[in-house]
Amino acid sequence: MTMVKLKMGMVGGGQGAFIGAVHRIAAQLDNQIELVCGAFNQNPDDTIASGLSFGLPKNRCYASYKEMFIEEQKLPDTERMDLVAIVTPNHLHYDIATLAIEHGFHVISDKPATLNLNQVIALSETLAKHNSLYALTHTYSGYPMIKEAKHRIKQDELGEIRKIVVNYPQGWLSQPTDENNKQAAWRLNPEMAGISCCIADIGVHGAHLAEYISGLTISHVCADLTTTVAGRYLDDDGTVMLRFSNGAKGVLLASQIATGEENNLTISLYGEKASLHWSQESPNSLIKKYPNQSSEIIRTGVGNLCAITQSNTRLPAGHPEGYIEAFANIYLNFAQQIHALKHQLVPPTSALDVPDIKDAIRGMTFIERVVQASESDQKWHKI
Amino acid sequence: MTMVKLKMGMVGGGQGAFIGAVHRIAAQLDNQIELVCGAFNQNPDDTIASGLSFGLPKNRCYASYKEMFIEEQKLPDTERMDLVAIVTPNHLHYDIATLAIEHGFHVISDKPATLNLNQVIALSETLAKHNSLYALTHTYSGYPMIKEAKHRIKQDELGEIRKIVVNYPQGWLSQPTDENNKQAAWRLNPEMAGISCCIADIGVHGAHLAEYISGLTISHVCADLTTTVAGRYLDDDGTVMLRFSNGAKGVLLASQIATGEENNLTISLYGEKASLHWSQESPNSLIKKYPNQSSEIIRTGVGNLCAITQSNTRLPAGHPEGYIEAFANIYLNFAQQIHALKHQLVPPTSALDVPDIKDAIRGMTFIERVVQASESDQKWHKI
Amino acid sequence: MTMVKLKMGMVGGGQGAFIGAVHRIAAQLDNQIELVCGAFNQNPDDTIASGLSFGLPKNRCYASYKEMFIEEQKLPDTERMDLVAIVTPNHLHYDIATLAIEHGFHVISDKPATLNLNQVIALSETLAKHNSLYALTHTYSGYPMIKEAKHRIKQDELGEIRKIVVNYPQGWLSQPTDENNKQAAWRLNPEMAGISCCIADIGVHGAHLAEYISGLTISHVCADLTTTVAGRYLDDDGTVMLRFSNGAKGVLLASQIATGEENNLTISLYGEKASLHWSQESPNSLIKKYPNQSSEIIRTGVGNLCAITQSNTRLPAGHPEGYIEAFANIYLNFAQQIHALKHQLVPPTSALDVPDIKDAIRGMTFIERVVQASESDQKWHKI
Amino acid sequence: MTMVKLKMGMVGGGQGAFIGAVHRIAAQLDNQIELVCGAFNQNPDDTIASGLSFGLPKNRCYASYKEMFIEEQKLPDTERMDLVAIVTPNHLHYDIATLAIEHGFHVISDKPATLNLNQVIALSETLAKHNSLYALTHTYSGYPMIKEAKHRIKQDELGEIRKIVVNYPQGWLSQPTDENNKQAAWRLNPEMAGISCCIADIGVHGAHLAEYISGLTISHVCADLTTTVAGRYLDDDGTVMLRFSNGAKGVLLASQIATGEENNLTISLYGEKASLHWSQESPNSLIKKYPNQSSEIIRTGVGNLCAITQSNTRLPAGHPEGYIEAFANIYLNFAQQIHALKHQLVPPTSALDVPDIKDAIRGMTFIERVVQASESDQKWHKI
Repeated sequence: MTMVKLKMGMVGGGQGAFIGAVHRIAAQLDNQIELVCGAFNQNPDDTIASGLSFGLPKNRCYASYKEMFIEEQKLPDTERMDLVAIVTPNHLHYDIATLAIEHGFHVISDKPATLNLNQVIALSETLAKHNSLYALTHTYSGYPMIKEAKHRIKQDELGEIRKIVVNYPQGWLSQPTDENNKQAAWRLNPEMAGISCCIADIGVHGAHLAEYISGLTISHVCADLTTTVAGRYLDDDGTVMLRFSNGAKGVLLASQIATGEENNLTISLYGEKASLHWSQESPNSLIKKYPNQSSEIIRTGVGNLCAITQSNTRLPAGHPEGYIEAFANIYLNFAQQIHALKHQLVPPTSALDVPDIKDAIRGMTFIERVVQASESDQKWHKI
Repeated sequence: MTMVKLKMGMVGGGQGAFIGAVHRIAAQLDNQIELVCGAFNQNPDDTIASGLSFGLPKNRCYASYKEMFIEEQKLPDTERMDLVAIVTPNHLHYDIATLAIEHGFHVISDKPATLNLNQVIALSETLAKHNSLYALTHTYSGYPMIKEAKHRIKQDELGEIRKIVVNYPQGWLSQPTDENNKQAAWRLNPEMAGISCCIADIGVHGAHLAEYISGLTISHVCADLTTTVAGRYLDDDGTVMLRFSNGAKGVLLASQIATGEENNLTISLYGEKASLHWSQESPNSLIKKYPNQSSEIIRTGVGNLCAITQSNTRLPAGHPEGYIEAFANIYLNFAQQIHALKHQLVPPTSALDVPDIKDAIRGMTFIERVVQASESDQKWHKI
Repeated sequence: MTMVKLKMGMVGGGQGAFIGAVHRIAAQLDNQIELVCGAFNQNPDDTIASGLSFGLPKNRCYASYKEMFIEEQKLPDTERMDLVAIVTPNHLHYDIATLAIEHGFHVISDKPATLNLNQVIALSETLAKHNSLYALTHTYSGYPMIKEAKHRIKQDELGEIRKIVVNYPQGWLSQPTDENNKQAAWRLNPEMAGISCCIADIGVHGAHLAEYISGLTISHVCADLTTTVAGRYLDDDGTVMLRFSNGAKGVLLASQIATGEENNLTISLYGEKASLHWSQESPNSLIKKYPNQSSEIIRTGVGNLCAITQSNTRLPAGHPEGYIEAFANIYLNFAQQIHALKHQLVPPTSALDVPDIKDAIRGMTFIERVVQASESDQKWHKI
Repeated sequence: MTMVKLKMGMVGGGQGAFIGAVHRIAAQLDNQIELVCGAFNQNPDDTIASGLSFGLPKNRCYASYKEMFIEEQKLPDTERMDLVAIVTPNHLHYDIATLAIEHGFHVISDKPATLNLNQVIALSETLAKHNSLYALTHTYSGYPMIKEAKHRIKQDELGEIRKIVVNYPQGWLSQPTDENNKQAAWRLNPEMAGISCCIADIGVHGAHLAEYISGLTISHVCADLTTTVAGRYLDDDGTVMLRFSNGAKGVLLASQIATGEENNLTISLYGEKASLHWSQESPNSLIKKYPNQSSEIIRTGVGNLCAITQSNTRLPAGHPEGYIEAFANIYLNFAQQIHALKHQLVPPTSALDVPDIKDAIRGMTFIERVVQASESDQKWHKI
């Protein structure tokens, strides 16, 4: 069958932006999507420089995302962009996503979805009125072993879940922040980041992962956020005690001041019958522990893994897949959704396994409730 | 110099009791102490059977601890027991320790020190009036790498401590408890264990370790204890958010229902300049992480470790020392304290590095405050 | 600067071929190369089906590699393929590479370079007469931590190298081989694979890595190859004792019948002053051990890594890069070589860091000598 | 039942000798043996100083081992030593063991058993003529997970064994040897150590472990020993390719110049159906790998381990047992052998699981053949 690639535009993510480059590699990794246009920078000259360096023609390097949506809409179907990747600081997500949807484009957005809860609710209403699809890049849910964990819990291999512990320590903001570090600057600026730095940037990944894998929802939180380094306005560390819909307990630890840590996200899910353990820095192993039996090392590519895990794996066992491949899985599955919609096909089950607007709402709700809970003397807060 | 061993009696710890056997091995490991008498069981016949199996003469197997203290006191100095090890369920600790002290014996006791806070305060007052020494077996503080961690923080290698995370998951109570499991039965019985199972049994180890290594004290707690398995009266799981005396934040996770976990105590201490990481199941490594530099694996027996670490190490590098050796370090150091007191010598610094009555009070305070905090709707509670 | 992608053709690697897909992803990962044509299968219809599924136009799907070279040569410079990737069984490498070079194309080839030593020598002579560049995909040398190891040895951080141990156990041929497993079938067929299976397929990677990192050359071998599973004609396991040019000793272990192993390549290099240790299944860590000092964990993305390591890294620390990224590094660096040649520029140093025809000759020499040595009663054999 | 401890004498192992202290702790750990006498040093005054420091009466501190055997023989059964531990450099083992046996004492000896093969054969003949029992301290065979590995292979869990890889790197002799390091001095002195340093000191442990676990015997060797550091007379590094009785292949790597390594003994045994992997520095885990299935982590204290494993374990799961406990297992089992002999009882199966004179002969044979093989130009040598 002839493969026709989906065409993607990008807002933000110009040269030198770490996450922009990751999006471009991930989107194009499986040959399902090609970058065709962009509004990469606020400065049009920079956008052109970026676009040319990415191999784009100059006329597809737009001065603004508004111009991009207007102009791309005019192009014939065979040329027009299908989807737009939003890779800007948080405060721009809402306007860009809304306009894109209104112009008929599908959206894949960096998390958190918007600057605040109201915006994401408005966005979901806009989505409901249009035919666009929406995906949110909760990257870690793209790892094969995370999908396998979700599957095994769904198959009841753990029995009732009793406790979930997510720990996400990073150390990159442990020192007084260099103003020239763009990544840090906007994340610590309330006008661009919203009401939280640590919880909005990484804590929300942990919360998503806990719900994604377990199939449970967080019902209550008790939070303690901290602004550790002097001169900051937002949290750079936080702990959240959790209660889940089924009565299970949980703890979410997130930190950007955990000196010396890289991106050490780990999660343990304890059920009545067994427990599962995963670490982002060794992502191709999933440990299963049993009461008074040998533990099991489940590995990417080894044995009877579920169909979704397999469709999110490219290599044979022992050939490490990493962060880019997990990111690419989100793009791959989203591309299949779009493809199915475009051609009025039934998408494969694996294509539906992408964080969407419901996850976006959950995430923004979580961030707002946690910040409120942290400021309160009351212990528990409903979510 | 001729070595004369200290003579030890034991209350509790008859045949088949796990921790009794550990005490006997640990006490005698370094040839500083010998077991000479005991009241091992409530049933005198069982005590005799146990004592004979341990190689004791029948006349040193006492029907009760009271009889043991009275009779041993009558013996000449060259025969009389010097110290008593208390290896019973919690509810007996206070009476035995008090009587031992009043009869002039030194005491080494299992933790938690007593059934409640009032008892341990009374015990400290008794101690103050007598010449006895008192040690509490917070085993994990006996590991060489824990001592090295403490030393390095004292040397300011981490800078100001900002966050401490202690996680202590066990799974041995994850299933409905077998009534025939004596270890479980009394720990889950409020009359024998006090107001807490999980926090009193293992959480208190984590709290001690955090304070021991960091040199800080916990100032506030916010707690969420859970009784997971139906039919229990006490907590089998708990999370405590912590604040420390210097403003540092912390989290203590403890669980006995973490299905499949063995004795997976870990601690991470994050300072301004670096962080330290230790895991009880791999106790001979201490990881030090720095901002944007290679990490360091500090190993028992390798390099310029501090004098106290060295005096708590028996083997060259790469020859694993484990739990029994950590336990033996507490006995070894306590024996040197007693020896110094007996012979009016100045004890070596390492001998003073033993958990004592102050730690006992801290521990009982922690347990009580955490249980109160868990029952409260208020978030933070002073300790 | 406008980026113009290099254009690549492919021989072999049709749909369903594992390594073909890896080549395509790796080649295009960094947006420097695009696949424009191919002769993917022996059957022209299959080639067309494959090509269409990869998004190629039908007219660039050639019935044979000969046709492809002839037809592509006729195309204008702006359309013509620049380089060809050879992704076939071993016995075809020589003819394809030779013809490609003679038609003016650059070549990137799977290893081992040819079916035997004579062929690779002839190939090197062909290369010497033409302007083509040649790269051999010794993938593991593309990992950032391997490049860092090489750099540190060059900087004399280890002192004189004394011993190198490479261990490469796989288990995928541990069971009687399924005839339907195409990967296994040709590798075990002397006509397609040459005189060796295990040494030619994976042992040669280990030998290359030892020489690549250390900067030494293997001078003598003593070998013991085994055909473990009944009915096979070639080795599926082997051990080779090594002597290096500087007098250092070494051992290479390779196995395809190491039941349960995935792709567990590890290497340790011991010098007078320190040692380095790397494991392919945890590729982003490099351990450095010292005499009686703490060990060091060198990590991708952390600290002052050398310029070449950095130019072969895409993500910040803690975001795992894996096999595909290592493979892509070979393509990226080779693309920069071709680009520099095309535009008469001086290539960056990192671009020259690609296995080439000299490595190809070393590899084929190694394979032949090891097979001879294994058949001999004599212990040592010069190489 | 009243426990009467066995009484032990010691030759060598005075104050400051590392392995002497280990023997004393290990022997007495399980309360089955007590040290009652010794000839710890060549200098009688030092022996007395050592003995007193160990708590012995002066009259049991003997000027020589000859005097000790003569005098102890005269004592009544209730006081006389039962067994002697030989803890001297290799060249003294034979004379001491022979005399001890001739005087009716049981012997437990450091390895290698004697200075050369002739001596150990003579020793075995002496043993055959007397009633003494003999044990050799191949410590690593005392670890519970090693016993479990042996059991599982015996149960055919691996199928036919095909390959065994033992790697034993140490780095303690990587630097020019300090003459004041007594441990190094005698091991590198041919008159005291025999014809080999590295193979006799540690390689023989690896060979023993391979045979012990697998139940196979080494039939042929091909060896390459090296004297790395200038000025030495004996090997400080070696590699030995192995063939086993069933046709399995193997490799033994041993090194004392592996800079930065501690005591990093590892072994992998590959069978038709599965493989087992153990590492001395993480001794409480045994990894089992299967073809295309999840791997298994078998842990000390977890699940249905065999009876012998259990009788060599003291603690519940997750409480690390280490080198001393493994050493103590050899003493414990040997003590039970002696006890059974003394009281004409049938010893438990676990008591027979102790390296004995047959292992001693195997070990000395291995050392001699490996040294011969290394000096030969011929590849394979029968053993």
